Amino acid sequence: MGSLPSDTLAVEMTDTHVLAGAGDGADTTEWLLNSPNPPSFWEELAAAVRENVIPRSCTKTHLAKKKTKTTSSSSEKQSIFKATLTLLQSMFPILKLGRNYKASNFKSDIMAGLTLASLSIPQSIGYANLAKLDPQFGLYTSAVPPLIYALMGSSREIAIGPVAVVSLLLSSMLQEIRDPVADPVGYRSLVFTVTLFAGIFQAGFGLLRLGFLVDFLSHAAIVGFMAGAAILIGLQQLKGLLAISNFTTKTDVVSVLESVVRSAHQPWYPLNIVLGCSFLIFLLVARFIGRRKKKLFWVSAIAPLISVILSTLIVFVSRADRHGVKIVKEVKEGLNPISVHQLQFNSSSVGLAAKSGLIAAIIALTEAMAVGRSFASIKGYNIDGNREMIAMGFMNIIGSLTSCYVATGSFSRTAVNFSAGCESVLSNIVMAITVMLALQFFTRLLYFTPMAILASIILSALPGLIDINEALRIWKLDKLDFLACLGAFLGVLFHSVEFGLLLAVGISFAKILLISMRPAIEEVGRLGRSDMFGNMKQFPMAMKTQGISIVRINSSLLCFANASFIKDRIMRLVEEDDDIEETTKDQPKQLVVDMCNVMNIDTSGIIVLEELHKRLLLNGIQVTIASPKWEVIHKLKRTNFVERIEGRVFLSVGEAVDSCLQSASKLPSPTKVLVT
Amino acid sequence: MGSLPSDTLAVEMTDTHVLAGAGDGADTTEWLLNSPNPPSFWEELAAAVRENVIPRSCTKTHLAKKKTKTTSSSSEKQSIFKATLTLLQSMFPILKLGRNYKASNFKSDIMAGLTLASLSIPQSIGYANLAKLDPQFGLYTSAVPPLIYALMGSSREIAIGPVAVVSLLLSSMLQEIRDPVADPVGYRSLVFTVTLFAGIFQAGFGLLRLGFLVDFLSHAAIVGFMAGAAILIGLQQLKGLLAISNFTTKTDVVSVLESVVRSAHQPWYPLNIVLGCSFLIFLLVARFIGRRKKKLFWVSAIAPLISVILSTLIVFVSRADRHGVKIVKEVKEGLNPISVHQLQFNSSSVGLAAKSGLIAAIIALTEAMAVGRSFASIKGYNIDGNREMIAMGFMNIIGSLTSCYVATGSFSRTAVNFSAGCESVLSNIVMAITVMLALQFFTRLLYFTPMAILASIILSALPGLIDINEALRIWKLDKLDFLACLGAFLGVLFHSVEFGLLLAVGISFAKILLISMRPAIEEVGRLGRSDMFGNMKQFPMAMKTQGISIVRINSSLLCFANASFIKDRIMRLVEEDDDIEETTKDQPKQLVVDMCNVMNIDTSGIIVLEELHKRLLLNGIQVTIASPKWEVIHKLKRTNFVERIEGRVFLSVGEAVDSCLQSASKLPSPTKVLVT
Repeated sequence: MGSLPSDTLAVEMTDTHVLAGAGDGADTTEWLLNSPNPPSFWEELAAAVRENVIPRSCTKTHLAKKKTKTTSSSSEKQSIFKATLTLLQSMFPILKLGRNYKASNFKSDIMAGLTLASLSIPQSIGYANLAKLDPQFGLYTSAVPPLIYALMGSSREIAIGPVAVVSLLLSSMLQEIRDPVADPVGYRSLVFTVTLFAGIFQAGFGLLRLGFLVDFLSHAAIVGFMAGAAILIGLQQLKGLLAISNFTTKTDVVSVLESVVRSAHQPWYPLNIVLGCSFLIFLLVARFIGRRKKKLFWVSAIAPLISVILSTLIVFVSRADRHGVKIVKEVKEGLNPISVHQLQFNSSSVGLAAKSGLIAAIIALTEAMAVGRSFASIKGYNIDGNREMIAMGFMNIIGSLTSCYVATGSFSRTAVNFSAGCESVLSNIVMAITVMLALQFFTRLLYFTPMAILASIILSALPGLIDINEALRIWKLDKLDFLACLGAFLGVLFHSVEFGLLLAVGISFAKILLISMRPAIEEVGRLGRSDMFGNMKQFPMAMKTQGISIVRINSSLLCFANASFIKDRIMRLVEEDDDIEETTKDQPKQLVVDMCNVMNIDTSGIIVLEELHKRLLLNGIQVTIASPKWEVIHKLKRTNFVERIEGRVFLSVGEAVDSCLQSASKLPSPTKVLVT
Repeated sequence: MGSLPSDTLAVEMTDTHVLAGAGDGADTTEWLLNSPNPPSFWEELAAAVRENVIPRSCTKTHLAKKKTKTTSSSSEKQSIFKATLTLLQSMFPILKLGRNYKASNFKSDIMAGLTLASLSIPQSIGYANLAKLDPQFGLYTSAVPPLIYALMGSSREIAIGPVAVVSLLLSSMLQEIRDPVADPVGYRSLVFTVTLFAGIFQAGFGLLRLGFLVDFLSHAAIVGFMAGAAILIGLQQLKGLLAISNFTTKTDVVSVLESVVRSAHQPWYPLNIVLGCSFLIFLLVARFIGRRKKKLFWVSAIAPLISVILSTLIVFVSRADRHGVKIVKEVKEGLNPISVHQLQFNSSSVGLAAKSGLIAAIIALTEAMAVGRSFASIKGYNIDGNREMIAMGFMNIIGSLTSCYVATGSFSRTAVNFSAGCESVLSNIVMAITVMLALQFFTRLLYFTPMAILASIILSALPGLIDINEALRIWKLDKLDFLACLGAFLGVLFHSVEFGLLLAVGISFAKILLISMRPAIEEVGRLGRSDMFGNMKQFPMAMKTQGISIVRINSSLLCFANASFIKDRIMRLVEEDDDIEETTKDQPKQLVVDMCNVMNIDTSGIIVLEELHKRLLLNGIQVTIASPKWEVIHKLKRTNFVERIEGRVFLSVGEAVDSCLQSASKLPSPTKVLVT
C-alpha cells in the first residue's frame, strides 16, 4: 500500500483515545478486545420496531421542531402549521406540487394525459375481455383508481389502470369457481370481493411496513413470469382472433392448444382473422416506428385508438358482423356504479377470495414497484415502497366499491406517459377524466368495434413483456438465477400462474439457503509485498508463507447449517497442505482462520470452532483467529474461546501472520500426531 | 501495519508474474481486473458431483497406486492387495484394528463391555416399556445392532442400543394407529416396519452423501428438543411409578397430567410408590457420586443392575406383587427371533410407516452423530458422517429383520463406556454377547422385577438430557437461537415430538433468511494510521475522511432478497451524512462501497448497484467499489458496470480512499442536486 498520503488526509477525531502507532499487533488486538459491546438483541429489536412504526418523515419533522424551539412563540405556531402541512403532504404527496408547478408543466401533463387516454381506452376494453368481464368494467378501472392514486401515490410517471397479467390471473383463478358465461353476476361480485381483499392486503402490507414481501420475487423470477404470462395472454387472444366459441376455461398451454385444435372442426370466420391480422401488422409497424425514433413515440401511442376507430367504421359500413365478425355490442353508458352491495362474504368463497386477493395483491404490487422504481431512478428521485403500497391498497379498496377490478401500474402505458413528457401525477387525473367523459358520452360508438381488434391490441403490447435478451443475460451471469427464471416461465406455462410464482420463489430461497449451507473455504496468500491477502486461485501471484496455512471462511454466518461443513473443509485443507509439504518435511504448524466475512456465529458455530481448535492442537497445529467481526469477537470473548486459544486474535491477517512467524521462532517444534 | 518482517518471511513463488511494488493502486486494480475467471457453474457442479460420488478414501488409494507405478510388477501385485485391503477396511473399519491392538487393550474392552452390559440390560427393558413393547424386545435391540455397528461403524466409544427419546418417539407416533394393548402383534409389526424404513433412510442418506441433513437440527434446537423429550419421558414414568391403569396414549404434557389427575380417584398402591421412590433416591445418589469422583463412575454404572437385583429379591421374598406392586412377569427366553414375516407393506399403513421411519431416522442419527462426534473430538480422530450413516442404516435394517426396534448411540451409556476405558468398538461386541447370554439363560430371574424400578432407572437417566446451563448460555449468546431452542421445547411438550422438531427447524432457517434479507450496512473509518478500516461504532478511535463516505455491506449475498434494502440503507447513510456535514458546508462527494463481504451477486443485485450509481451521480456523488470478491468482480466486468463507474474498482478500501483523495483534488466541485 506504500506511504499514506497523510498530508492530504483531513482527519476528524471522533474520540479522545490516544492512538498507538499502527503496526503494533498487541495494541490493535487490544482495540479489538476492548471495543464496546455490540448493540444487544433488545436494542436492535427496539430500533427495528421504532424504525418500522414511526415513519422517517415524522422523525425528520420532530428534528425540525427541535431546531426551532429556541425561537419565539409566534414562529412556534408557524412551526406547528408547518408540521401539520408536512404530515398532510406525507399522506397526500400531491400537495407537494404547489409552489414549483408552472403553467408549462400543466400543459405537458394535459398532453401526456390525453395521449395516455387514447391508449388506455382500447387497452382497458381488451383487458376487461381477458378478465372475462364486460368492456365497461375495464373503463371503470381506468377511471376511479387513477384518481385515488393521484391523491396518495408518490410516483410521477406511473400510469394506473387494468393490466394484462393481473387480468389473466383473475380470470384463471376465478372462472373455475364461478362460470363467467353462465353466472356473470356471481362472477363479477367474486371479482369485486377479490379486488377488495387485494386492496386490504396491499394497504396492510404498507401499514405494517412489510414492503420487503415484494422483494421475494427476484428479478429473474419476474422476467420468467412475465414471459410465461405474455405467452398465455397471447394464446387467450386466439379466441378473439379466430372467433372460437367453445374456448377452454383453463389457461395452461396444453389446454388452450387442445381447444384451438378442437375448434378446427367448427365453422371458420376468415373475415375475422383477416381483419385482426391486418390491424395487428399495422400496430406492430407503429410500435416498431415508435421504438426506432423516440420522437415518433406518439405513433405507437395512438395507433390502438386509430385501429379501433378505423375497424369500427369498416364493420359499420360493411356490416361485416353479419358475416361472422364478432363485435363488442353494447357497452353500458354512464360513470362507475356503486358495487358495495355486490361484495360477497359468505363462508364458502371468502377464503378463496382472500387467497386470490393475496396473490393478485403481490403480483400487482410487484409490477407497480418495478415500473415505479425504474422510472423514478431515471429521474433521480426515491419511492417509498411502504407508502406506495398504502396508496395502491386504498385505490383498490375504493375501486372494489365502484365496480373496478384490480388496478396497478402498467409497463407499457407508463412508458408512453414518460415519453409524452408528463411532469406530475396530474396526467393520471387528465386520463381518468377523459375516460369518464368517454364512459358518459361515447360508449355507443363502440358497438361495432370488432373483438379481433381488441385481441390484436393486446397482442401488440405483449412483445414488451417477453425480454429474451434479459433472459440470456441472466443465463450468462448466474445459472441458478436462470433456473428460477425458467421455473417461473415453465410453471406459468404448463401448470398455473400461482404455481409458477411459488416455484420461482422456492428456487430463489433454496439458492440463498444452499449458498449459506455450502460456503467456499478458500486458501489465501499474500499479494506482493503488501499487507493484502487474496484467494490463491484468483490471484496467481499470491504467495504462501511457509509453515502457515491461511484459510478464509466465505460465509456471513457460521451456524448450525454450515458449521460442520466448514470444519470438514478446513481440516481437509490443512491435511492436504500436509501432504504437499511432506516432501520438504516442513509441515505447517500454524493455521490462521480469516473470519473477516463472518458477521455472526451461533452456538453450533462456537462448538465447531472449539472442536477445530482441539483437533488441530492434538496434531500440533496452533489456531489463530484473524479479523473477527463485532458480534463474533463479542461471542468468542463471552464463551472464553479467546482465552482457550491464548488470545491469538488479531485485527487483520497481516498481524496474525506476523505474530505466527514470531511465535514460531520462539517455540520448540511441537510433536506431531498423525491424523487418522 | 508497519514494517514487514521480510527477512523472516519465506516466500514461494507460485507464478512467474513480475511483482510490482505494492502500493501502486493502478497495478493492484490490474491484478483484480485481469485475474482468471472463477470456476464456472458447470465446473463447480462437476466438482460437487465428483466429490459426492467418489468417496475420498478411493481418490487417496488411487494416489497411492500412482506413486507405486514406477516400481516393479511384484510390488504392483502387492499394491493391488493393499488397495483391496484398504477398500475392505474402509467398508469395515474393524479390520483396521489388527496390528496395534494389544492384549491390554482387549482387557480394557472386556471390562468396559461388562460394565456397559450391566447398565444396558435394565435400561433396555425400561425403554422397551416406554416404546410399549414387551421387555425382551429392548434386550434384542441391545444384542444384534451393536454387533452390526461394530463391523461397520467408525466410532470407538459409541454404545449402541435402544434410547429413551427414540422409544418415546415411536410409541407417540404409532400407538394412535395401532393400540399396543388391544393389538400387540399388529403394533409390533408396525414398529418393525418403521425400523426397516428408518434403516433404509439412514443408509440412503449415507449412500447419497446427504449427511448434511443431520445439520438441519441446530445445537440450540437439539438442546430444547432433548429437554422437552426428557420431561415427556419422565411423565410417562408416572404410569409405572404410580401404577396407573388407564393411562393416556397421548404424550403431550396436558393429556398426561389430566390422566394423572383422573387416576387420583382410582385405588392407590402406596407400596409401589415407596419402592420406586426409594430406589430412585438410591440411583440419584449413585449418579451424584459417579459425577463427583471420576474414579467412582462404576458406582453409577452398576447401580441400575443392583437396584434390579435387590428389588426383585425384595418382591420375591415379600410377594409384594400380591399387594399391588406391578411386576414385569414373563420375559420370553431365547435369542432374537426372525421377524421378516412380520413386516407390513399394505397400502393403508406403508406411507405412515415411511413417514415415521424418516422422523425416527433423523432423530436417531442426530443423537448418534452428536454422541460420536463429541467423543471423537476428545480423542482427536475424525468421524465420516456419511459412512456412519451407512453403518447405522444397515444396523437398523438387519435389526428390523431380527425383532429389534430403532437402535442408535446412547448419550448416557457412551459416557459410561468411555469412562470404563474402552479402547475399541470391541466393547460393544462384549456387551452384545453378555446381553445374549442374559436372554438365553437369565430371563426367568426378571419375573419378579417391579415395574416401578424400571421407571426409576429411566427417571434417573433423565437429568443428563436436560441441560439448563446450556440453555442459559444460548440465551446469553444468541436470542434467536434461544427462540429455536424454546420452540423445540414447547412444541414437544405441548403438541407433539414431530411438531416441536419442525418448529425448531423452521425457526432456525427463518433466522438464516432473516439475516440474509436484512444485513447491516456499517460506516467504516480508518483505524489509527494504518490501512485498516473498521466499523465506526465498534472502534471509537476510527476516523472519518472528509468528503468520503465509506460503507461496508455486511452480507455474503447481494441478491433479490436484500438488494433494495441495501440500496435504501446506503442512500440513507449518504443523506444523513449530508445532514451532519451541512454545517461545515463540505458535503461528501465520494462514496466508497466496501464489498469485501459480498461473495456473490445476482441480477437483482447488479440492477440495484446500477440504480445506486445513477441516483448518486445525479446528486454529484461518485461511487467507488472497494475489494470486490472473485465472483463479484467477474460479474461486474461482464455487465460493464466497471466501465460505467470509469474503472473505479480497487483491491482494498485504503487504495480506494487514496484514489478518491487524488481525484478530488483534480476534479472541479460537482454541481449538487438535492435528494428529494
